This record gives sequence, C-alpha cells and structure tokens, in this order.
Amino acid sequence: MKGIDLASMSINWLSELVRKKEISPVEVTKASLRRIEKYDGELKAFITVTSEEALRRAKKAEASIVRGDYIGPLHGIPIGLKDIVFTKGTRTTCGSKILADYIPPEDATVVKRLERAGAIIVGKLNLHEFAFGATSVNPHYGTPRNPWNGQCIPGGSSGGSAVAVATSLCLGALGTDTGGSIRIPSSLCGIVGLKPTFGRVSTYGVYPLSWSQDHVGPMTKTVKDAGILLGAIAGYDPMDRASSLLTVPDYLSIGKGVRGLRAGVPSDYYFENCDVEVRDGVMKALEVLKEAGMAVEEVTIPHLSHAASAGLVILMAEAASQHENYLKGSQGKEYGRDVRGLLKMGTFITAAQYLKAQRVRSVVRKEFLKIFQAVDVLLTPGLPIIAPGLEQDSVTISGKTETVRSALTRLMRPYNLAGIPAIVIPCGFSKSGLPVALQIAGRPFEEVTILAVAQAYEEQTSWHERRPSM
Amino acid sequence: MKGIDLASMSINWLSELVRKKEISPVEVTKASLRRIEKYDGELKAFITVTSEEALRRAKKAEASIVRGDYIGPLHGIPIGLKDIVFTKGTRTTCGSKILADYIPPEDATVVKRLERAGAIIVGKLNLHEFAFGATSVNPHYGTPRNPWNGQCIPGGSSGGSAVAVATSLCLGALGTDTGGSIRIPSSLCGIVGLKPTFGRVSTYGVYPLSWSQDHVGPMTKTVKDAGILLGAIAGYDPMDRASSLLTVPDYLSIGKGVRGLRAGVPSDYYFENCDVEVRDGVMKALEVLKEAGMAVEEVTIPHLSHAASAGLVILMAEAASQHENYLKGSQGKEYGRDVRGLLKMGTFITAAQYLKAQRVRSVVRKEFLKIFQAVDVLLTPGLPIIAPGLEQDSVTISGKTETVRSALTRLMRPYNLAGIPAIVIPCGFSKSGLPVALQIAGRPFEEVTILAVAQAYEEQTSWHERRPSM
Repeated sequence: MKGIDLASMSINWLSELVRKKEISPVEVTKASLRRIEKYDGELKAFITVTSEEALRRAKKAEASIVRGDYIGPLHGIPIGLKDIVFTKGTRTTCGSKILADYIPPEDATVVKRLERAGAIIVGKLNLHEFAFGATSVNPHYGTPRNPWNGQCIPGGSSGGSAVAVATSLCLGALGTDTGGSIRIPSSLCGIVGLKPTFGRVSTYGVYPLSWSQDHVGPMTKTVKDAGILLGAIAGYDPMDRASSLLTVPDYLSIGKGVRGLRAGVPSDYYFENCDVEVRDGVMKALEVLKEAGMAVEEVTIPHLSHAASAGLVILMAEAASQHENYLKGSQGKEYGRDVRGLLKMGTFITAAQYLKAQRVRSVVRKEFLKIFQAVDVLLTPGLPIIAPGLEQDSVTISGKTETVRSALTRLMRPYNLAGIPAIVIPCGFSKSGLPVALQIAGRPFEEVTILAVAQAYEEQTSWHERRPSM
Repeated sequence: MKGIDLASMSINWLSELVRKKEISPVEVTKASLRRIEKYDGELKAFITVTSEEALRRAKKAEASIVRGDYIGPLHGIPIGLKDIVFTKGTRTTCGSKILADYIPPEDATVVKRLERAGAIIVGKLNLHEFAFGATSVNPHYGTPRNPWNGQCIPGGSSGGSAVAVATSLCLGALGTDTGGSIRIPSSLCGIVGLKPTFGRVSTYGVYPLSWSQDHVGPMTKTVKDAGILLGAIAGYDPMDRASSLLTVPDYLSIGKGVRGLRAGVPSDYYFENCDVEVRDGVMKALEVLKEAGMAVEEVTIPHLSHAASAGLVILMAEAASQHENYLKGSQGKEYGRDVRGLLKMGTFITAAQYLKAQRVRSVVRKEFLKIFQAVDVLLTPGLPIIAPGLEQDSVTISGKTETVRSALTRLMRPYNLAGIPAIVIPCGFSKSGLPVALQIAGRPFEEVTILAVAQAYEEQTSWHERRPSM
C-alpha cells in the first residue's frame, strides 16, 4: 500500500481502510508528510510541520489498532491546525512576527479532543496575521497559493488550512471563522468549510480576534468528513464561558435527503452585486436541490443589509481591545501594515458605536430566528466573486467597484453576527477554472440539517471530486 | 378615623387596618393626598400628583374590600413612582425638560404589578434628570429637600422617592438604581432602600440609563415594607430580556434572626476615607448583629477598588448611546448643564475602554461569588459621608478631598456592576441630626437573606422609628 494517493481519499474512505487494517496510521501519516515535503515549498500552506511528533503518535495509533482498540473515524488520520490554535510544546505563531517564538503551555480544547479521537496532527497552517484579514496575504510567512491558480489568493484568514485540504497535504483541518475566515478560503479553494453555531465548539486556547464572533470549525473535502471532524470537536467545555450545554447529536447519520425540507433564498441581499458566473452556479445548485425534493422560496430579512457593518464594528472594537497591550507596546511595530492599520482604526471606535452595532445584532438575530420558523435553511452564494488576484485591492461587479475585503466578507458576516451555523460546498467552476461555492445556513445548533442538505447536494453532483492539478 | 397619622404608619401596619376594615382605602388615599398638598410645596418630592385617578382607584379598592375581595398587603396603600417609570396616560418627565409633556402609551410592568396588587399610585416623584446624577439637584422641577435639613441634598437620583417616603407623603415608593440611585437617597433620608438582583424585577417601561446596570426596587420606612413591595413587583417578565425565570420566594417570612449566618466586612475598601461618624455608626451596627448571633469576619475582594470606575465607564457609555439621538438633535440644548456634560463625555469613551470595563466586571463578579461561598452577606456603610449641602461640590474626609459625586457613588457601584442585591437601612444619626446607613449585600437572588439580616437589625434598634419634624 505504499502507493496510497491521498488526493483521491476522503477521511471517511481512508478511515475504513485503517479500521480494516488495510493501511496503517504510520503509512498514512508518512504519505501526508511526503506530500507536504513535496508540495508545500510552493504552496506555503504550513508554518510548522510536526513530523516527529506526528510519526510518534502514528506509531501509538498503529499499536492501538494492532491491539484491537479502534477509536473511530479519525483514528490515524492526518489533520492540520490553523496556527492560531494553541498546541502544547509546539510554537503557535498566529501568523505573526510578535508570536513567532511563542510556545503555548497547554493544548486548546479542540486539540485535546482531536487527539482523543485518534487524529494525527501533522502541523500548523498558515493564515492571515492574527486571523485579521480575508486574503491570507502574509508578510511574515509568505502567502499560501491558491491551488487552482497560483496568481490568485486562497482567501483567508484560514488560507493555509484550505490549501492543505484542497491539495490533500492532510485530510482535514481546523480553521477559525470570525467574519468568514473558514468559509472564504473554503469557497475560493473548492472545499467544504463549516462554521458551527456560536457555543457549539470550544474556543478555549484559540487566540481571540472578536470573542463574540469567533468560531472554530472543520475544513474538509467532503460533507461527510466535515461531520466526522465536527463530531470530534463539538460539545460543552467548562473553560469556554460561551460553551453550550446542549447535547451533541450524531453528525454522521445525515444521509436522509432533503424531501420535505424548506429553503429560503434572501435574493435581494445575496444576489445583489454578485458575479454572473457565481450567480449561475448557485442558481443551478438550487435547481439540483429542488429536483431532489426541496421546497425553495424567496425570503426577506429586513435588516440584513446592516449586518455586515455591525459585524465589522464589533470585530474591529473587540480586536483593538484584545490587542491593546501589543499595540501600545514595543510589539506595535511588528504587525504587518494592514493588520496594524485595522487595529489602530479599531481603537477609534466609540462605545456608542459598538453598542449600536450590538443593537443591530440583536435585531438581525431575531429576524433570522423568525425566518427559521418558516424555512429550515437559507441558501445563498458563499461569496459574490471568484478568487481575486494576489495583488488585487478592489473588484468591479456589474459596474460597481468595492474593496476585495468587503466583497469577501459581506455575505459571511451576518452568520457570525447572529451566531448561526453555515456551511460552504463547491457548486461549480468559473470558465477560468476557479471554484464557486454554495452556502447553507441553518437554525442555531441544527448543524445536522445543513449537513444533510449539503450531503444531498453533494450526492447529486461531482464538484467535490474535482482536484487541482499538482 | 379622620385623624389618621400616616407618619406613624408602616405599610404592614396600615394594611392590617385596611384588611380589618378599620380604615378604608379612600380615607388612606385622602390622608396621603392631604399630606402631599400640605407639605410638598416645600418638599418638592412630587412632579405630578395624580389625585383624581388615585381617588377613583381608591374607591374601586374600597368597593372590592366591601365585597370581601381583599387582595393583600398593598390593597389600598398609597405608593409613589419615580417619574422615570412609565405610566399610561400620565406624563412621565424623567425629570427632564425634553420629556416634560411625554405621555406614555403603556404602563411599565412594575406599575401593572403594583396595581394588580391593589396599590394606589398617588403620583410621580422628582429625580435627578434622566436619573443621571446622585444629588437630585434638578434645574427643571426644583430640588427635593432633605427632610432632616433643608440645606442638605436628599441624594439621588431617586431623591423625590426618598423624601416622600421619609415624610410619609406616601407609604412606599419605587426608585431605580444604576449607580446607587435607590440606596444613596435612602441612606441620606434615613429610610430603607433595596436594589434587587439584576433580572429580579422587570425594567420594561422604565427609561434606561445604563441597561446593563439599571435596577428597579422598593423604598420604604421598614424592612418588612420593602419585602411587601418587592414581592409585588418581582418575577419574570417576557418583555424584559434580562428578566430571570427563577421563582419568586416569599419575602414576608423573613423574621428568622441571624443566628448561624456569616457576614463579611471588606474594610480595606469600605472604611477607607470614611467619615468618623459614619464609621462609628456602622461599627456599632456590626456589634448589634454580632450580639444577635451573627458571625462577622474581615474579608478581602482583590479587585474591588476597580469596580467603581468600571461601573462608571459602562454607565457613561451606555447612557451616551441611549441618549445619542436627543444629544445630536434639537433637544440637546434642553438638558441641564451637568447631565449634558456627562452625556457628552460619554460619547468619547472608546469601545476598547468599554470592553476593558466589562472585563473588570467579569473579574469582580467572580470575586463576589467566591466570597459568597465563605459568607452569607457583606456588611458595609451605605455611604462614606452624611448628607452634603445643596451647593456643595466636594467633600473632605480625613484630609482627602473628593467630589460629592464620587463620595456618593463609590460604595454603591460595585453592586450595580456585579448585579448582586443590596439593601440600606438607617443605623444612626450624626450629631448634626443627619442619618447614617448600614448596607447589606448578598448572593444573587437571595434577597430573602439580606432582608432577614436587615429585619434582625431593625428589631434590635429604633432608628427606623425616628421621623423628621415637619
């Protein structure tokens, strides 16, 4: 089994081989490390590769299987972590120069849970500095390249995670999502990215950006794999004050189709200023779901157009508060130019502005909960654009110009602000060969439903099987 | 029974006479209205007296008793409302020129509850403009006078409420307390004032000052009466998002003494810069409670000294946000000078400062909850000073000068910040004849305990029987 090709493997499939002892965790881990060695010089997905520790753990995982102690679907599976998730004894840079040598004294809760589930952590993934940006352009560690076109951004802030998964350097990764940071790079790199409900997955041991909007979640090649990873990391954590006590359901039994489910499409917000190729791709995806038995209707969420700016104000204010000491201290000059600029802007946000944004949040959240009395999920594009170029600052859609930052985040932020779960999955490619994504949002703590819809779509299509040429 | 002397009456006592039909609600209400007419020209406790409506309701209350439908201890009892509590059809000025003609379309939840309990609302009580001040000096409606010395402030912001109760113009009143506004005037006027736990009493229909620190509560002449009023207004209200679902206990069966209870005294914060006469009065009160069987020990709350400034920052920011539209609009010039100045200062507070204050809040609240594992209540002075003069801006205690605002609020704010319940009761008088108060704070939602301690103290002493000469 030396010739194992990770590019053709999902976690779900590979774990069956591991369970049946047709392939060993050590072989799998070595295959992952070989791929990283071969491709990551160019891809720049990893900041730190933990080869030794990974092999050590892989051997233990193998021994455990030989003993007959099979843990579950992550047993022996190589997983990467966005380098903002603390790892005991392994440096966690947050993509910054400031923390270039920081070695956390403790694992984040999600790391402990992944390892308890048998996963093999192969390294720490590149990101936008301190997760504060949507491109992953990183002045300190280089910019991860979009595997579909090296001249385009991979998206951020979890850019390294998306690139590593899209190119199968590892089989899954954890990202964080404060204003789209899991879903933006997942959309631009053509993989599955899930931002769970706020409080569903512990953020303890993850460097905060905007604590009231920060989420940790899985990035994978298939919907099934997202469910596997979510199941491992979800659940109550006394160390995270926002953590929910609600029982974690089974995210694997999701293959029940969409018949009887109702979907809402808030077109007036989500299709306004949307690239034609994106719109066509998403429209076709809606047709696929209708044919699979889903009822799809237009819906309106009155204050949705205020959500993105409210989310941004809250993010800027909370980030400035979080970074206050670095910004005032000698570390202030070690930020990249863009992040320092944003943090400084954040210090000028007044409490009155912050509190107004919180009031908008409360209104928008209520409106979402109301709409979810009528529909089970919301279907929208993931992003209004395909991947922009590495040096690109603005985009023009039907004659209207906006910044790349705004285009990448405006369809994402409403779900961070409201704390509701959302998943993106590939639903097509542009003529230039860049991925287009469908976004599915659902009721708080009903990740099962959005996974089921995503799964039903995936079963009808083959976009998820397309892999970048390497 | 024409000669009924309200000055010698508590709610508890008077309600017994009403229940036994020895005096009728109409007679009681008329006695209250006569007192208001006789004394309020000088006292300036009321902004609006609702004589007609009160008499109409008194007649209904009387008819109901004649029918044999006795509701309970507030049946037919004259109560006043701080004029920041909305009353349907009766103007609610908030002590401001801006709302001088504002007639609310709906009663506040606490008003509905008082009326359901049979209380007779006799009018709307004077206050510091928009409750944003600790003196009750009011440029629009005149300043209520301290009944113990007309040259001294009554304290605020619920100054009219304290004056009306201390002089028995009505038998009880509702105040609001965001940074001490129930407890400061209760302390300075020698009555009982209770700030309940945050979430215990609905604030729906009460004009907000700092929504995360606003509380509504009773002001009465005795502890028993405070329990009667609290019982009527406490409990879940779906219209108030912060409202607690916890069951409301019986606040009347509190006469169980203090034997076995443990009290903590955080002297380093509460007796620092404290007037000698106040300290002596409170020390003697502690002796009384010890003799009654209470264990009293020194305690330390590490970050207590940061609580007052954190509370102030949060108050200033939330008030500025609340008043934003008036402040920017044509109404901006109609504020009194002090309130306009504070609101303008509030607009300069940054989100980072606000969020830091919220972090202090979280630390201090945790420290309080920890101390309440060791003790049942905290015993402290209500204020570090006796009533200052009407024109006084600063006070000097043992050589240290501070503003009157700071002296009046610094021992109060920690309990607003932490949302824990606290009661003040008279525990002595200065040589100049001004009241001194003992403050008792307790665990969240354990108002029963602080009422029991206050009751035990009251039973051993007679300060509450002393009334100002009129």
